[in-house]
Amino acid sequence: MGIEEVVKEGIMPVWYLMGAALVFFMQCGFAMVETGFTRAKNAGNIIMKNLMDFCIGTVVFVLIGAGILLGEDLFGIIGKPGFDIFTNYANFNWSSFVFNLVFCATTATIVSGAMAERTKFISYCIYSAIISAIIYPFEAHWIWGGGWLSQLGFHDFAGSCAIHMVGGISALIGAAILGPRIGKFKKDGNGKVKKVKAIPGHSLTLGALGVFILWFGWYGFNGAAAATIPQLGSIFLTTTISPAIATFVCMIFTWVKYKKPDVSMCLNASLAGLVAVTAGCDVVDAFGSAVIGAVAGLLVVFGVWLLDYVLHVDDPVGAVAVHMMNGIWGTFAVGLFATKSVPEVTGLIDSGSMAGLGLFYGGGLKLLSIQCVGILSVALWVVITITITFFIIKSTIGLRATFEEEVTGLDAAEHGLQSAYADFMPIVGNGGSMVSQINTSDKSSVVSKAAAVPVQVVQHSDGSTGVESGLSKVSILCKQSKFEELKNALNDIDVMGITVTQVLGCGTQKGNVSRYRGVELDVVLLPKIKVEVVVGKVPVSKVIEAATKALYTGNIGDGKIFVYNVENAVKVRTGETGMDALQGGADDYF
Amino acid sequence: MGIEEVVKEGIMPVWYLMGAALVFFMQCGFAMVETGFTRAKNAGNIIMKNLMDFCIGTVVFVLIGAGILLGEDLFGIIGKPGFDIFTNYANFNWSSFVFNLVFCATTATIVSGAMAERTKFISYCIYSAIISAIIYPFEAHWIWGGGWLSQLGFHDFAGSCAIHMVGGISALIGAAILGPRIGKFKKDGNGKVKKVKAIPGHSLTLGALGVFILWFGWYGFNGAAAATIPQLGSIFLTTTISPAIATFVCMIFTWVKYKKPDVSMCLNASLAGLVAVTAGCDVVDAFGSAVIGAVAGLLVVFGVWLLDYVLHVDDPVGAVAVHMMNGIWGTFAVGLFATKSVPEVTGLIDSGSMAGLGLFYGGGLKLLSIQCVGILSVALWVVITITITFFIIKSTIGLRATFEEEVTGLDAAEHGLQSAYADFMPIVGNGGSMVSQINTSDKSSVVSKAAAVPVQVVQHSDGSTGVESGLSKVSILCKQSKFEELKNALNDIDVMGITVTQVLGCGTQKGNVSRYRGVELDVVLLPKIKVEVVVGKVPVSKVIEAATKALYTGNIGDGKIFVYNVENAVKVRTGETGMDALQGGADDYF
Amino acid sequence: MGIEEVVKEGIMPVWYLMGAALVFFMQCGFAMVETGFTRAKNAGNIIMKNLMDFCIGTVVFVLIGAGILLGEDLFGIIGKPGFDIFTNYANFNWSSFVFNLVFCATTATIVSGAMAERTKFISYCIYSAIISAIIYPFEAHWIWGGGWLSQLGFHDFAGSCAIHMVGGISALIGAAILGPRIGKFKKDGNGKVKKVKAIPGHSLTLGALGVFILWFGWYGFNGAAAATIPQLGSIFLTTTISPAIATFVCMIFTWVKYKKPDVSMCLNASLAGLVAVTAGCDVVDAFGSAVIGAVAGLLVVFGVWLLDYVLHVDDPVGAVAVHMMNGIWGTFAVGLFATKSVPEVTGLIDSGSMAGLGLFYGGGLKLLSIQCVGILSVALWVVITITITFFIIKSTIGLRATFEEEVTGLDAAEHGLQSAYADFMPIVGNGGSMVSQINTSDKSSVVSKAAAVPVQVVQHSDGSTGVESGLSKVSILCKQSKFEELKNALNDIDVMGITVTQVLGCGTQKGNVSRYRGVELDVVLLPKIKVEVVVGKVPVSKVIEAATKALYTGNIGDGKIFVYNVENAVKVRTGETGMDALQGGADDYF
Repeated sequence: MGIEEVVKEGIMPVWYLMGAALVFFMQCGFAMVETGFTRAKNAGNIIMKNLMDFCIGTVVFVLIGAGILLGEDLFGIIGKPGFDIFTNYANFNWSSFVFNLVFCATTATIVSGAMAERTKFISYCIYSAIISAIIYPFEAHWIWGGGWLSQLGFHDFAGSCAIHMVGGISALIGAAILGPRIGKFKKDGNGKVKKVKAIPGHSLTLGALGVFILWFGWYGFNGAAAATIPQLGSIFLTTTISPAIATFVCMIFTWVKYKKPDVSMCLNASLAGLVAVTAGCDVVDAFGSAVIGAVAGLLVVFGVWLLDYVLHVDDPVGAVAVHMMNGIWGTFAVGLFATKSVPEVTGLIDSGSMAGLGLFYGGGLKLLSIQCVGILSVALWVVITITITFFIIKSTIGLRATFEEEVTGLDAAEHGLQSAYADFMPIVGNGGSMVSQINTSDKSSVVSKAAAVPVQVVQHSDGSTGVESGLSKVSILCKQSKFEELKNALNDIDVMGITVTQVLGCGTQKGNVSRYRGVELDVVLLPKIKVEVVVGKVPVSKVIEAATKALYTGNIGDGKIFVYNVENAVKVRTGETGMDALQGGADDYF
Repeated sequence: MGIEEVVKEGIMPVWYLMGAALVFFMQCGFAMVETGFTRAKNAGNIIMKNLMDFCIGTVVFVLIGAGILLGEDLFGIIGKPGFDIFTNYANFNWSSFVFNLVFCATTATIVSGAMAERTKFISYCIYSAIISAIIYPFEAHWIWGGGWLSQLGFHDFAGSCAIHMVGGISALIGAAILGPRIGKFKKDGNGKVKKVKAIPGHSLTLGALGVFILWFGWYGFNGAAAATIPQLGSIFLTTTISPAIATFVCMIFTWVKYKKPDVSMCLNASLAGLVAVTAGCDVVDAFGSAVIGAVAGLLVVFGVWLLDYVLHVDDPVGAVAVHMMNGIWGTFAVGLFATKSVPEVTGLIDSGSMAGLGLFYGGGLKLLSIQCVGILSVALWVVITITITFFIIKSTIGLRATFEEEVTGLDAAEHGLQSAYADFMPIVGNGGSMVSQINTSDKSSVVSKAAAVPVQVVQHSDGSTGVESGLSKVSILCKQSKFEELKNALNDIDVMGITVTQVLGCGTQKGNVSRYRGVELDVVLLPKIKVEVVVGKVPVSKVIEAATKALYTGNIGDGKIFVYNVENAVKVRTGETGMDALQGGADDYF
Repeated sequence: MGIEEVVKEGIMPVWYLMGAALVFFMQCGFAMVETGFTRAKNAGNIIMKNLMDFCIGTVVFVLIGAGILLGEDLFGIIGKPGFDIFTNYANFNWSSFVFNLVFCATTATIVSGAMAERTKFISYCIYSAIISAIIYPFEAHWIWGGGWLSQLGFHDFAGSCAIHMVGGISALIGAAILGPRIGKFKKDGNGKVKKVKAIPGHSLTLGALGVFILWFGWYGFNGAAAATIPQLGSIFLTTTISPAIATFVCMIFTWVKYKKPDVSMCLNASLAGLVAVTAGCDVVDAFGSAVIGAVAGLLVVFGVWLLDYVLHVDDPVGAVAVHMMNGIWGTFAVGLFATKSVPEVTGLIDSGSMAGLGLFYGGGLKLLSIQCVGILSVALWVVITITITFFIIKSTIGLRATFEEEVTGLDAAEHGLQSAYADFMPIVGNGGSMVSQINTSDKSSVVSKAAAVPVQVVQHSDGSTGVESGLSKVSILCKQSKFEELKNALNDIDVMGITVTQVLGCGTQKGNVSRYRGVELDVVLLPKIKVEVVVGKVPVSKVIEAATKALYTGNIGDGKIFVYNVENAVKVRTGETGMDALQGGADDYF
């Protein structure tokens, strides 16, 4: 028995399973990336979605998907569904099932990132199930299950097209239908976007952890199906060079473009380089993978920019730029860079003819055309099926969480989870960048405009207490979610300098029951914010009126306002005291 | 040389070591799960325990455990102790030693989760050493070392019984002897539990990271000892299906039961599914593993509920529900679902007779009985030995940290570690759910009741400063650990609405030296809380008296109280001002 | 075809690649360890450095390093550079390239830890490139590429010397040239260090995660190049025992020395044990690895102490103690403990003669001498080349970030990243231990001493408002970075008791543009601190004067000061009220 046979029948099958385990571990990577790049208030929800896409995916893949993907080919379109896993377990291909399942789950998990922080959990479960049961298995059958694309000579070794492009397109369409997160785009009166806002993720270290785990797992993703040891070595090489170059190029580019090398973009670039080399990891050489990576490193920056500034589609984690754009690029690049200098010139690249080689390696346009046919046909399939899926969900149970749920955070709203970080207090507003992200405009249509309650304001006493300074401190205690409105209301009456403190207010939250592992939480201390302003020329009554108007909803928890006398104020920079210390715009408050 | 031989002598031995590395990596998973599911103030302690159980475990396993487990069988009960590792290294079975060591360490690590946040570190080291040196090796010898259970035909492929049940039983007994964490159960006058409180973990993302790592590592845990490639494929399949189904079922069940799908319970369910399929991963098929997983997904919810609401045993991470209950279930399930349709029908399942098959597959009660004998005998062994261990520790050096240590956190108390998250400030109280968890009752017996110090209170001036409003703000600065008592004291005098702010107070902590990497920490800013109340009808003197009484211990750091005049107050919801703005219960404070 | 041949040609080559993937994953471990052991404000920067050393390393290793390391040997000194990877891909050794690349990147990554939190990013990129392109490949060629050390019989199986010592020496020299982080050492007037300060890392859990990942990856690091299965088994065993013993010994030692077992030191000890066993993992037995580990566990504590207290070199993560000291120790220990009882007594240890054995195993001083020659010659090479590298960088673009950049944090300064943890607010000062770490002395030379602005202080009114108490509260709002100076200024006028609150101030940060993924951040709420003091005997005017002097820079954002009347004060411990309540030193403030 020759070494080739031993490798083929003994060694590679074990590595194939080890590779499948590595691909499973990529679920962890995706979970960490998506969680890290989004806000703390949705962390539990994102983890749950990443966990469930694998678990729901397993259920539907067992029942439906596996048959469609792996069953006997019918007309080049679909595998014959079947239940061999239950009825004929003794002769089942266990390894292949596990391997295909973990790949399938990867496709589904890509979508969750782009639609993060605003998708209803139940809707997520449904479309995730449909991707794993039908959308992915169909096209994967075309490519890998003996279907028409594989018969045509389409080459996608590990899934730039079958997995990443498909996940990425679903992500784009999903994010577009869903609409942006509250506060992502600031619109003018005509609904035109006039400003794009950044909503930073809550943990770049988690994001980086996820990227490293994904890269590690990708050696299994790209390598698991290698047929020989030299091929595996070459795959490891291209799978290393492409992301490294992509990250390097992205660093240089963002350094030039934004003056500073961007951390989170470089993390995305690593993934972009990995996605792009996935289709051709076995048929491109060091040079090819370097070029593929270099383009990927630029493409991801372009992609994020395009979605933000042109398409105005909100993709919190960059899934579209990473997976869709680079999935397409990588699949296309096979038609450019496929070479016969790689170890296994089998299947696609018949060493006799030049037909299977890329454009730059003497293969002409043949392979490139086939790659384009593959990209377009699979894209068409996904666009149609996923659009139908999302629209049916949208018009029945709904796709998007309510305004209140989104502002509160999906952890509390969808899972009754007070916080994924119970011992720490997230920053005011709806997280990120120490800025409340809510535009008043986002809200006006949703929450009924607060009618100003008639306030019996006791006139600011110019009497005994305030006599020396004429200054008063107004201290406003209110909900975090009302902060943006309050700030705007104060700005409107020329109160610019405010100090915000995170406090905990005593009270019991009625209605929303929070549970942790089945046990109800007594939440007696609720996070509130205290907004303090010191005013001199602006009358206290005006501040109270503006604040009351901004905060009033008529519900318990609208807040309280206290007025204190201030004896004196000093502005450090100028040495001005009393009333004079308060002059100057917001920039100059402190 | 046939392929079978190559697989057996060449390929599987390498995979066996790779599997051992994966099992080692599960230590990381356990550390992350246990840390994430507990509070920030104990994070360093939990990490240290997880690290040390492996390291101490290695020391004692080398010296004692390995011989007992792997040595020549004596009477079916015990292996012959020996020091071949030192005396005859050239002929030692290196791989087997490493493999058995990482499994052994898994057993010990399970216990730390259930006993987290309140066990003395030195006591932990001791019982962890005893588990690795004696308790585990004995029963593992019975099952895997050629002992009487293996001779009987007991089947536990990768350790549902040998490892998880044993760890889980130890965890239950330990947690029961130790008693619940302060604040976990609220008791009435008769000592009967009248309320179960949730104490949320400080990082669900770390918890999820741990679960993903464990699942990944489990492919090594269950697969490492596979004899052939088909068997390995089948093990991967069952090891995937069971946890996926368990998680899915748990999601549905908690959705129905608690109205919302519970994140942390689903994470536990993944582990439950993995534990349950561990014993039979090689002898059950897809259907069997699906049923095993489905039951596991329910069992874990039941188990957590049982401990919380019936047994009143406090298991912070759910180790008993996951490992003990599902360890038992999984071992038992072998007797139900063992089938001959799996690849390797060797050893246990003699394909000639039906004796080794499960009840549902024609094997009758034979195997099921043997499984029960195994469960009961191993359980008996563990119950006796671990109980003796815990009682000896309890009656000598003590098992539990002191009240003060527990409230402070074991990081500071046991390791001189100021905080595992030095750049962030944990929330008031002893963590979790933004609620201080201390019941006054927990404390009264421990800390001597503070005698009210006679306070010379300056009467609240109704004079010049407070004349318009009659309102005063009382601002109380105190230790975080006193918050609960202070709140209760204020409630007793009908002060409901309080505002709590986390502040840092200047001062040097005497006595407790904190070190970081051998260097003493200058802690000049100590975390304190500021509790502010605005009172009108309630006299300021009464507030001061109540606060003083609650806070007094006679030690430095008891706190300070300041009184300010308030000019006016407005309640936003009603527009009421002055004294009227302060009316209403706690729910209505803001 | 015999099993040996199959193992050699089929099985080990696949494991070799899996091992390379594990070594790649160690990049993740290093990133987590270094991030966790440093401060939150530099987390993004550290991640970026860890990511880029691999990516830049790949670029230069492809172009330069690989040839030097792997090319045809010239004079025993250098490999013949070449571009076979591009020109002759079909006959390239893909696996070897990947394997050597991931090892190379490990060397570079070690340096980043010791130089963390203060190195300019561009300078890091440059020296990291030089290490990967030249410094490492040269000496690695000597040891592994057929160079003179390998010809001499020098034994360093997996890189205690070639990688860890080299990285560690570079780390030491770099950290020494760079100087300590601001606040690490407190100097007296003569520039002599009079106090070492601890600067705790921001997440011990991340640090622990990294250690576990590194340990896991180390099975690949040490094992990847194993030639046979028994050898691999023995390597796994020694790679397990050494770190376990090291950690155990370190725990005991720190327990005795510092009274409490130190968590972060034990985490370092695990790494120390791994580094130390790396050179001899294939030639030492269980006993040898135990002794090597035990020494490593002590050496790491000594090393950290030595750098802190004797050399006064600031190494935030302990890279020098872990990698340099234990790299040297491990390489040296081969000469002591190499034994012929290990599975493969090939190459170095010719079983015929005793020449290749360690001193304690009958080999005399021969091997030990060779090991010393190797250590010294490689050390000399590194010392010279890295010193030149650092000095050229220092005298051209500069090595160290500016004072302002370091205080602000490199995330914001170097990457325009507001915070790696956008939803959380780091603690006052420059992080760590709730203590501001800036010594005034550090700063005086850098920032121009603030000239006292003449302040027109309104005299503290003893009139209507303060009549009963004579107490006033002065509330100072300022930048976090000014805290230390403010505190000192207040101490100087005998104001000891201060309360610090983290607040957010409204304003727009001009000048520094923060971007997140290419989108500009609107930062309208800036982190500020509120320092409150209540004074009686100390006149308010004096407090204002001192604060103004400390805070004044003349720039926008210097802060504001407000004065309030206090009606009364009570000290809980003594019951004293009014002015009396404020007496006592800082320790006694609360």
